[in-house]
Amino acid sequence: MDPLVTGIREHWDGQGLHGDPGPFMAICSVARLNQLLRKALDDELGRLDLGRTGYAVLTTLALMSSGQARLSTLGRWLMVHTTTVTLTVDGLEADGLVERTPHPRDRRATLVGITARGRERANEANLALGAHGPLSGLAGDGHEQLFEALQSARIAVGDREFFAAADDGDPHGAAHP
Amino acid sequence: MDPLVTGIREHWDGQGLHGDPGPFMAICSVARLNQLLRKALDDELGRLDLGRTGYAVLTTLALMSSGQARLSTLGRWLMVHTTTVTLTVDGLEADGLVERTPHPRDRRATLVGITARGRERANEANLALGAHGPLSGLAGDGHEQLFEALQSARIAVGDREFFAAADDGDPHGAAHP
Repeated sequence: MDPLVTGIREHWDGQGLHGDPGPFMAICSVARLNQLLRKALDDELGRLDLGRTGYAVLTTLALMSSGQARLSTLGRWLMVHTTTVTLTVDGLEADGLVERTPHPRDRRATLVGITARGRERANEANLALGAHGPLSGLAGDGHEQLFEALQSARIAVGDREFFAAADDGDPHGAAHP
Repeated sequence: MDPLVTGIREHWDGQGLHGDPGPFMAICSVARLNQLLRKALDDELGRLDLGRTGYAVLTTLALMSSGQARLSTLGRWLMVHTTTVTLTVDGLEADGLVERTPHPRDRRATLVGITARGRERANEANLALGAHGPLSGLAGDGHEQLFEALQSARIAVGDREFFAAADDGDPHGAAHP
């Protein structure tokens, strides 16, 4: 067992805390990683004039076979409030990275599509994050190991839509919006 | 290799994206887990009339040998803005779970100490999270496995203070504030 884990366990018992330290450790660990990762990403993506949500929107759209998705679908996939997606798309559109089009069959819906320039920017960002992103110090296939290590936890908290967009079946109709 | 990972890799290459999908997958994975965990924790802790930050404050103080810490130190450890810590401590104090005392040697500083009732509440919360918390579905020592799996990533993004409070040396002077 890891010495830090052993140390925390001993401290927990020594201080007379009830229950198991596992949940507290796991929860703090995820929150801290997320917080530090956000800051580091803001720095890295800021050099490319992109925010975190903008980067996620561009990469998600680039992964769609149609290059398009509904605004509301993007919000759901990215777990971001519709207002935030709208503001982010406003910024990306002003920079010529995405464009809005009315949905051909649903009057109330707006489609967001990635432009050629948007694809270039997504590629730049993904190359940069691989080369000197906040987690690029992880050895070898560290990114994938982290992803795989988080899978059972994501499923335990109810994450059912990770990369739904990348499924062949496009279950949310996103490829044929 | 995990089939989801293989699927995403194939999709990435098929859509002509540059770079490696690893960073995007790892980043999304951490953000989604954090987001879903926050919501699930709010539900679970809400039953005990605790917020997430309040729970973290109580458990952190219960782990200190003195049961006390400066407000500013708590904020730094919990990576929470001073205003948020202050508001959280206001709420905990109104419920009789912590109490403020002036620092004996530093006039400008305030100490926050956990009360007997605060320790009870922390124990209730930790027992509840172990029994039916959002990650209690993880098999066996799943909480610890998650914690250990995140360690190299936390260190890569610069996390140097995890459980500094629980170190024997109390390097931040928190045990002797």
